[in-house]
Amino acid sequence: MKKATWIWYPGDFEINLGNRMQNRRTERGVFFPPFWKMDSHYVLVEFSKKINLEKSEEISVIAEGKCNIKLDGKMFCEKTITVPAGNHELKIKVYNQENPPAIFVSGETIVSDYTWLVTCEDKEWIDESGKASDTTSGTSYVEVGSWNFDDPQNPPSSFRLKTEIQSAVTVKSTGNGTLADFGRETFGFLVFNNLKGKGKLNIYYGESCEEAMDTAFCETLDFIDIDFAEATNYTLPDSRAFRYVYIEHTGIVFNEVSMLYEYLPVDFKGSFRCNDELVNRIWDVSAYTLHLTTREFFIDGIKRDRWIWSGDAYQSYLMNYYLMFDSAAVRRTMLYLRGKEPVTSHINTIMDYTFYWFLGIYDYYSYTGDLNFVMQIYPKMKSLLDFCLSRRNKNGLMEGLAGDWVFIDWADFPMSKSGAVGFEQYLLYCSVSATRQIAQALENKQDAEYFAALESEIQKTLYDYMFDENRQVFVHNYDKGKQSEQITPFTNIFGLWRKAFPERIAEEIKKQVLMNRDALKITTPYWKFYELGAMCEVGEHERVLNEIRSYWGDMLQLGATSFWEKYNSDEQGAEHLSMYGRPYGKSLCHSWGASPLYLLGKYFLGVQPLEAGYKTFIIEPHLGDLEWIEGDVPTPNGKIHIFRNAVEIRVMTDEGRGTLRFTCLKKPVCRTGTIIESSKNVYTIEIQSGKEYVVKMG
Amino acid sequence: MKKATWIWYPGDFEINLGNRMQNRRTERGVFFPPFWKMDSHYVLVEFSKKINLEKSEEISVIAEGKCNIKLDGKMFCEKTITVPAGNHELKIKVYNQENPPAIFVSGETIVSDYTWLVTCEDKEWIDESGKASDTTSGTSYVEVGSWNFDDPQNPPSSFRLKTEIQSAVTVKSTGNGTLADFGRETFGFLVFNNLKGKGKLNIYYGESCEEAMDTAFCETLDFIDIDFAEATNYTLPDSRAFRYVYIEHTGIVFNEVSMLYEYLPVDFKGSFRCNDELVNRIWDVSAYTLHLTTREFFIDGIKRDRWIWSGDAYQSYLMNYYLMFDSAAVRRTMLYLRGKEPVTSHINTIMDYTFYWFLGIYDYYSYTGDLNFVMQIYPKMKSLLDFCLSRRNKNGLMEGLAGDWVFIDWADFPMSKSGAVGFEQYLLYCSVSATRQIAQALENKQDAEYFAALESEIQKTLYDYMFDENRQVFVHNYDKGKQSEQITPFTNIFGLWRKAFPERIAEEIKKQVLMNRDALKITTPYWKFYELGAMCEVGEHERVLNEIRSYWGDMLQLGATSFWEKYNSDEQGAEHLSMYGRPYGKSLCHSWGASPLYLLGKYFLGVQPLEAGYKTFIIEPHLGDLEWIEGDVPTPNGKIHIFRNAVEIRVMTDEGRGTLRFTCLKKPVCRTGTIIESSKNVYTIEIQSGKEYVVKMG
Repeated sequence: MKKATWIWYPGDFEINLGNRMQNRRTERGVFFPPFWKMDSHYVLVEFSKKINLEKSEEISVIAEGKCNIKLDGKMFCEKTITVPAGNHELKIKVYNQENPPAIFVSGETIVSDYTWLVTCEDKEWIDESGKASDTTSGTSYVEVGSWNFDDPQNPPSSFRLKTEIQSAVTVKSTGNGTLADFGRETFGFLVFNNLKGKGKLNIYYGESCEEAMDTAFCETLDFIDIDFAEATNYTLPDSRAFRYVYIEHTGIVFNEVSMLYEYLPVDFKGSFRCNDELVNRIWDVSAYTLHLTTREFFIDGIKRDRWIWSGDAYQSYLMNYYLMFDSAAVRRTMLYLRGKEPVTSHINTIMDYTFYWFLGIYDYYSYTGDLNFVMQIYPKMKSLLDFCLSRRNKNGLMEGLAGDWVFIDWADFPMSKSGAVGFEQYLLYCSVSATRQIAQALENKQDAEYFAALESEIQKTLYDYMFDENRQVFVHNYDKGKQSEQITPFTNIFGLWRKAFPERIAEEIKKQVLMNRDALKITTPYWKFYELGAMCEVGEHERVLNEIRSYWGDMLQLGATSFWEKYNSDEQGAEHLSMYGRPYGKSLCHSWGASPLYLLGKYFLGVQPLEAGYKTFIIEPHLGDLEWIEGDVPTPNGKIHIFRNAVEIRVMTDEGRGTLRFTCLKKPVCRTGTIIESSKNVYTIEIQSGKEYVVKMG
Repeated sequence: MKKATWIWYPGDFEINLGNRMQNRRTERGVFFPPFWKMDSHYVLVEFSKKINLEKSEEISVIAEGKCNIKLDGKMFCEKTITVPAGNHELKIKVYNQENPPAIFVSGETIVSDYTWLVTCEDKEWIDESGKASDTTSGTSYVEVGSWNFDDPQNPPSSFRLKTEIQSAVTVKSTGNGTLADFGRETFGFLVFNNLKGKGKLNIYYGESCEEAMDTAFCETLDFIDIDFAEATNYTLPDSRAFRYVYIEHTGIVFNEVSMLYEYLPVDFKGSFRCNDELVNRIWDVSAYTLHLTTREFFIDGIKRDRWIWSGDAYQSYLMNYYLMFDSAAVRRTMLYLRGKEPVTSHINTIMDYTFYWFLGIYDYYSYTGDLNFVMQIYPKMKSLLDFCLSRRNKNGLMEGLAGDWVFIDWADFPMSKSGAVGFEQYLLYCSVSATRQIAQALENKQDAEYFAALESEIQKTLYDYMFDENRQVFVHNYDKGKQSEQITPFTNIFGLWRKAFPERIAEEIKKQVLMNRDALKITTPYWKFYELGAMCEVGEHERVLNEIRSYWGDMLQLGATSFWEKYNSDEQGAEHLSMYGRPYGKSLCHSWGASPLYLLGKYFLGVQPLEAGYKTFIIEPHLGDLEWIEGDVPTPNGKIHIFRNAVEIRVMTDEGRGTLRFTCLKKPVCRTGTIIESSKNVYTIEIQSGKEYVVKMG
């Protein structure tokens, strides 16, 4: 019997779930919804499958919604029908306003799965004689969406994250109430055992102890009316982010306060270990941070905003490829962010966040090789790009129009957002380039040529307006008819990270921007990601390690158990907790804090795909100042294991064709592979999957 | 205290209600949904109101959905807040997936009403300092939608039609069960009094007795499992269309079967009476037919399809202006039909039905003068027109592309739908013309000029390809590079009805098409509407009366208690019931059957608006062969009363400035108005509202 799974219109499960998740944010008890447009699933869709049966079989249909079943145009009242042998067309139409229409069809050979098609307008009308129109030519069918809903009793709308009970580490009476410490940043539903009495249960959550105890200013709270004559175990209805919980409970008693930890069940397929325990701890806390923020979707922070932000998610995707390799989470997030036609605004209203979405699609293809998904989403890349291109000014530059948020970074230096900002032009260029590459992957020659021409045009515009010919670096913006003088890190560093510049320019950027102690300072882990990535790209691995040790190490020193939205070493004490004009406005568990996962995986273990989906890939392990490193980098169907110290490299891979590259002053030895000296002191070995390569460099 | 009302995003109540209504169709117990795309309401919207208060006041907010209240950017936890004196901005954001977000705000002076604005993307982000962005420039606010939901306890989602109990006229045992006759076509929920027993209650509905008794082929049925040990009053959950009900109830008894008649509460503001009782009965049954099909929306038929069809609705709008003048029903229907962006298909997938929508907007403006609604919908006229224009072929003609249904009529003669069909080009021309007229009404000069140029261009194309220069009439279509020979009624008659042709062409069409007994025969009331309208336009009132007497009179003769989807006098017996290859496929209560309302109101009472909203209007009463006619034609805020016989005309109006026009062989007399002889034997009198004009022609 073939395996059936729940299927739906692609993106609709994601849109519905994303709306629900994002509308769970509260601020001091007040519902706090997003400010961008929320799409809805198609409320009426038709699933379709062509069938060729050797012998008749019985199928049963379960639907989320009101359901119409047609076999070769004949409607059935029953939900279990017999399909005779031969060729047939099965169509199932479902209406559901609250949840995405979805079906689960099970038979001997006929099952709902990814091979079905679906449409939101079947256009099948019946003429006066009762004949149905031939619709196949007029109906836009697309491949259905599905995931892992293989149980007919658990339809997509029943999706919930997993939970498990966790205890507080310390609980003590303080002030007018009780303070519980769960030992580290966590997320879930508070649980009271044997709760009894009548009165107000006032709960103040804190990512820091200061926050939990500050009942007037903590960001998250729950006020609950309790009236239990009998001792009752009580779980709160809403999940929250916290380490500390301060509870006022006059007239109410309880035995114990614990929590249901709520999480997405995923495996950590990637790993990293080295001789430096601080770096290992940073990697572990990064992994914990990323896992906490990888939920229904990749979100920004677990206390705030609990929303899906494209720029934040873009970094999560890249970290994810080195930790969980959860492709489904990437797809969910990208589907949600793009939503439905028409495009009326930038993603999250932020211009740069629109562009990161394009880059995310390309990276997804590159890491996973999933051409199917890319094919499905490609039309939406084109329509989103059309939106962007239509907003260029007469010089071909994208300025922030009414309602556009030009974000880039929370920078502590003055940064102009007026006129055309250089970094946005650069991202537009990267987006066109990504679209061109996807068109090529899909072998859509005509589109690929069109986008290649556009790419050149936009690159020229970028250099014409934003490149300072004298200093050979990119300036910040072009405003009121002239190029600004200011040099900001953004275009320079991001392009360096992407290896996008000719050598001379790269050298100047490295000197004037990247390694220049007087250059403008980056104070968010968000941009540390690109800054340290760029440093690795120019071979500054030791400096990157030291930055990791100081920037992330400092947060650990300050008591962090997950990494923060922002960290500025110039700040003191409670300043570290404040942001957005609020004393605890800062998120202390923010996905973009977890970038060491990416840096250590990509640049120290040194693995990245060359051809899509790790068909071919490079392994270029770097020690920096470490004595040894060891770890795994996941690939679509396996992993790459690497060990390196000063005298030995060991590599073992599960799939694809790798190239191990390393520098060595004397000729290395490898018994299982052929060593080629590709340039002076640089050696490569072709790595076949399934066998270990040991390279002696001693 | 000002009156508060529930408000929502315009169109969203209508879209949600229309989806629910249209997904109530069943065919022999099987759920039967539409085949076109169903949009969804915006699930997250923000309502906004600028306030200037002399003294502080308390307001309370009720919302359908999760709700966020902000006054000048400050969020409130409570739903009752105090607004201090001064200038403020109140913003209320609501999330609701299942029903359209809606609010009811009540205070002394601050109330939710039509003056509020709403957006589906407020784009209000907060920067790092906690400052909200200035969003006013980037957010597209529109005026809210509202209707008559003035009770805080009855939100829009609770909307239901009214019901009242009605008894069966006869109930008798027959076959294996009981047959109830409700005396005439009706609609509602069947009710059983003192139902008792255990078993199957099988209910077969019939618009005819034949249908109810034909358990194997009746179109509508309900099979219900009953298990009542005690006698119970039981009302069926779903409303149905029927006159007869045949009930099989082995093992089950009941005292009485009755029904809850379900209807839209509206007044019949228009009326018509004359000396011919057959014509009076036709008018009465037409009014009943239109009322039955005027429900949540203007639907086609009450048995089938119970859907909103733009072409059918277009005629209902026009009939409605002469009976109920229910502007809200017209707006609801037009909002639903247009739905949301993007346009991916013709309305109802039918090309002609897209065009009727444009005509409907223009007529709505013309009859109601409601510039507000027209302003709101105008952008959607433009985007729908863009969709159409983009689908023209290289000759500028609209052919049916894949998925387009070219309907026009259920004709009993062979009609080609291939190539470019002339009538579709004519409707495109009319649609551009309607859009141009709306642009003018909105004083949008630039658009009006653009559409005027387009109108000329499309008119030229129409004449170039579809007009037969020799015969001076319009041919059916242009296919495979040449004009067809066939002359069909459509463009010719529709254009005549619209008074669109120069005199010479009009004469030829009248002779060759309209009054030609050998011309192709129209067999639907749908096209009888235009055919008889055209006859009136060319002064053939007597013939029209005779057609009404024979066509609609024949249906009455055959026992009709409401008018049918189709009537062909060549058919016999049960043939009258069949359609679509099904013995009872024909709808016996179809809105387009009610056109005598329009014909008698517009062409016999003779009233139509000249300037929008009856600011000025014409009254030109015609007797045809009748001795006297008398009746009312509603206007936005009143009505026009008319009496006429051979020697006297009496007119009384409530608003606007009318022109009474009539032909008389000798000079008439009117004591209250000034008679002008506008041409030989044609007289006009200016009619002021509020006084009676009596014209003696004897």
